[in-house]
Amino acid sequence: MGQKPSIPKGTRDFSPAEVSRRNYIISIIRQQFEQFGFQPIETPSFENYDTLMGKYGEEGDRLIFKILNSGDYLKKVNPEDYAQKDIQKLTPQLSEKALRYDLTVPFARYVVMHQNEIDFPFKRYQIQPVWRADRPQKGRFREFYQCDADVVGNAGLLQELEFIQLYDRVFRDLGLSGVTIKLNHRKVLSGIAELIGASDKLVDFTVALDKLDKIGQEKVKAEMLEKGISREAIEQAAPLFDLNDAAEPLSALEDLLKNSVTGSEGVAELKYLLAQTASLGLQSCRLQLDVTLARGLNYYTGTIFEVSAPQGVDMGSIGGGGRYDDLTGIFGLNDVSGVGISFGLDRIYLVLEQLGLFPEQLDQALDVFFVNFGKKEGEAALKLLMQVRSKGVRADMYPTDTKVGKQFKYADKRNIPLVVLIGEEELQSGEFTVRNMRNGSQTNYRLDQWEEFTATLKH
Amino acid sequence: MGQKPSIPKGTRDFSPAEVSRRNYIISIIRQQFEQFGFQPIETPSFENYDTLMGKYGEEGDRLIFKILNSGDYLKKVNPEDYAQKDIQKLTPQLSEKALRYDLTVPFARYVVMHQNEIDFPFKRYQIQPVWRADRPQKGRFREFYQCDADVVGNAGLLQELEFIQLYDRVFRDLGLSGVTIKLNHRKVLSGIAELIGASDKLVDFTVALDKLDKIGQEKVKAEMLEKGISREAIEQAAPLFDLNDAAEPLSALEDLLKNSVTGSEGVAELKYLLAQTASLGLQSCRLQLDVTLARGLNYYTGTIFEVSAPQGVDMGSIGGGGRYDDLTGIFGLNDVSGVGISFGLDRIYLVLEQLGLFPEQLDQALDVFFVNFGKKEGEAALKLLMQVRSKGVRADMYPTDTKVGKQFKYADKRNIPLVVLIGEEELQSGEFTVRNMRNGSQTNYRLDQWEEFTATLKH
Repeated sequence: MGQKPSIPKGTRDFSPAEVSRRNYIISIIRQQFEQFGFQPIETPSFENYDTLMGKYGEEGDRLIFKILNSGDYLKKVNPEDYAQKDIQKLTPQLSEKALRYDLTVPFARYVVMHQNEIDFPFKRYQIQPVWRADRPQKGRFREFYQCDADVVGNAGLLQELEFIQLYDRVFRDLGLSGVTIKLNHRKVLSGIAELIGASDKLVDFTVALDKLDKIGQEKVKAEMLEKGISREAIEQAAPLFDLNDAAEPLSALEDLLKNSVTGSEGVAELKYLLAQTASLGLQSCRLQLDVTLARGLNYYTGTIFEVSAPQGVDMGSIGGGGRYDDLTGIFGLNDVSGVGISFGLDRIYLVLEQLGLFPEQLDQALDVFFVNFGKKEGEAALKLLMQVRSKGVRADMYPTDTKVGKQFKYADKRNIPLVVLIGEEELQSGEFTVRNMRNGSQTNYRLDQWEEFTATLKH
Repeated sequence: MGQKPSIPKGTRDFSPAEVSRRNYIISIIRQQFEQFGFQPIETPSFENYDTLMGKYGEEGDRLIFKILNSGDYLKKVNPEDYAQKDIQKLTPQLSEKALRYDLTVPFARYVVMHQNEIDFPFKRYQIQPVWRADRPQKGRFREFYQCDADVVGNAGLLQELEFIQLYDRVFRDLGLSGVTIKLNHRKVLSGIAELIGASDKLVDFTVALDKLDKIGQEKVKAEMLEKGISREAIEQAAPLFDLNDAAEPLSALEDLLKNSVTGSEGVAELKYLLAQTASLGLQSCRLQLDVTLARGLNYYTGTIFEVSAPQGVDMGSIGGGGRYDDLTGIFGLNDVSGVGISFGLDRIYLVLEQLGLFPEQLDQALDVFFVNFGKKEGEAALKLLMQVRSKGVRADMYPTDTKVGKQFKYADKRNIPLVVLIGEEELQSGEFTVRNMRNGSQTNYRLDQWEEFTATLKH
């Protein structure tokens, strides 16, 4: 046959080095999730067609991968729809299942299905791949992992406080300093919408305002006018333009929104979060009010988070989240408030790579390598190999007695620091030689002294 | 809306308790894989349609989940095929991608695609889900994990020896004793086929022979005759009927196959594996020659493994593998010998559950729980909570100052052994109380003595 193999566009093979780096990030995130009391769940890769469709808007529906029904999938198709090639009507008849698009909708479905087994507040985390038929581009894939933590069944603001600490500890453990956690509140945005007298212009307003640092006040105002926001509205919101330079940005915001009940509620929550975080302290991140932050406007109802990579790394957001009041309502369970955050695994990977922050030992998959000198020698080596492994040491041996030079080259390519030699000579004297591949030094041990050798390996 | 949610048949949600049990098994397998020098790779969930189709036989092709093309998927379909509703011709036009059916074909594809980056012998492991449109039944799912380790690029028999040790150590670490590793060889089967003079009857012969213990010699012979195996052939193979009772089964087999060159080669390899394993020793498993073992006959070319659950557990095989001579040939890379084994995660889970072998601490996701007594108390508790977590302790606090009884009930349901109390009294005296939920005993610490408390938690 000999077809030249390839993989679908937008997907990736991960080499051993890449898997170990990805697992390094995941294990740090997982460890903190668990220290913060989150419990893991897993949901199926595909859900029923109806569970997913209609939950992500029209664009989302298009990007969901549908699975073709098995067997004679045309048998039950309506002949008229088939004749007319009406895709809208045909797709749900050809496909009963679809690959999950995110972890949020499956989580909502899980909570509703298992509500009687769950003790609320339910703190779950989920680290699994999702699939989107997006146009692949740099940093955007058709299969990628999401790392989500959510709490549902409690409206306490303490959770938000906890999520800020959680972000801080994960990025601390990853050795990534300079990360900014941006904070906003849906109700502050509503207050601003009231202020400018046009809630349908809110997104245009925040998008323009977000460019303040880059293009300056005049150009921002010009853009707002262009988008149909009135001169009067812009005047009303004027203090927002100086917020970042204000001595007390939050007080300025409080003052600006004092006539909006909703806006004031938002400010009060932000005030609590900023004050409590100042009191608890952060070890690696910076927390920053950002009134231009308007992600997830259609589902977030309270706090909104977005996490930015350190300055100088061109990466955009590496995490985000917020509070939503009615996630499970779509599946018939109302009044379950929730709040959650997400880590962008692929982007965090790229940031750590760019900054050279992956620990060196990730590139070392083996601690010791055994050279295979032949039948008798190999048998002795194998026995020692199993003994060494019993101490948790990662060790391997060349499977055949190939030329020693080739075996050393193999050990070198696999970046193995120590090589054990049991040749004819060693076998006769009941010894083995350990060669340090970094500096060429050699040490001899008696075969029954193997534990002295393994004790030298810090693991 | 309020649709009642469900999941596709043959798929599963995994609760926190289930995920932690599954991860327990996976982490033990992964740790041994790594100690034995295997490196992780990951491949995409879906492969190109052509990569998978035609690799698993007709039945396999049917069971592969195909992904419906995105966008206007009817646009490029041949009108004639469409009009004739010719599914055979339509499917490859409607679907360019399919979910992987196992990890073996994607691995072969990976090796061929990345052959220039790989140092051979390449020892890889892969733990990922696979999908099959099989009829769901007890213990058989449409989405399940495979845990595979393979070595490609070397024909050394040492690998087989290593895999036997690897199985032994994994089951030892899982605390599962009584596992049998059954061993056979493709060449021994060929020798037997020569002996009975009918290689097309080999499977019938081994299937019947496998029933020896259950139904006895006479009925086995009757079944063989019924399947068209001649009386003469059965006579030729007579020593196989007494093999399990023979003092030296291998010698008996050697003698029986002495006129078959191929058969003798197989016996020699088995002899080596049995002798070497006897010399190295096994810590938890039993290694057993089983000439009726004929799994994977169409691709295994050397050793064949199958792992059985302990007697008394009705589970069938919980792992298996073997040597194949030309896995990558289907993608144009010839002469790459490989050998691999697999662990059956779902079945191992069921066995451990049935025998009560999951460690108790898996059910305990949190070490300490903090009761929330209100604003001021909660703030003090939160500070202590973050300190305790900094020592790696898994700790949580109720997000609101709900009734204390309800908070205790929550802690109890989550099986948390220790509860920390900072009420008004404690706050005033600068202390906190730790209540042991198992026996009700209480201990007091000063707030600045928190490290004395965390030191009592072995983690």
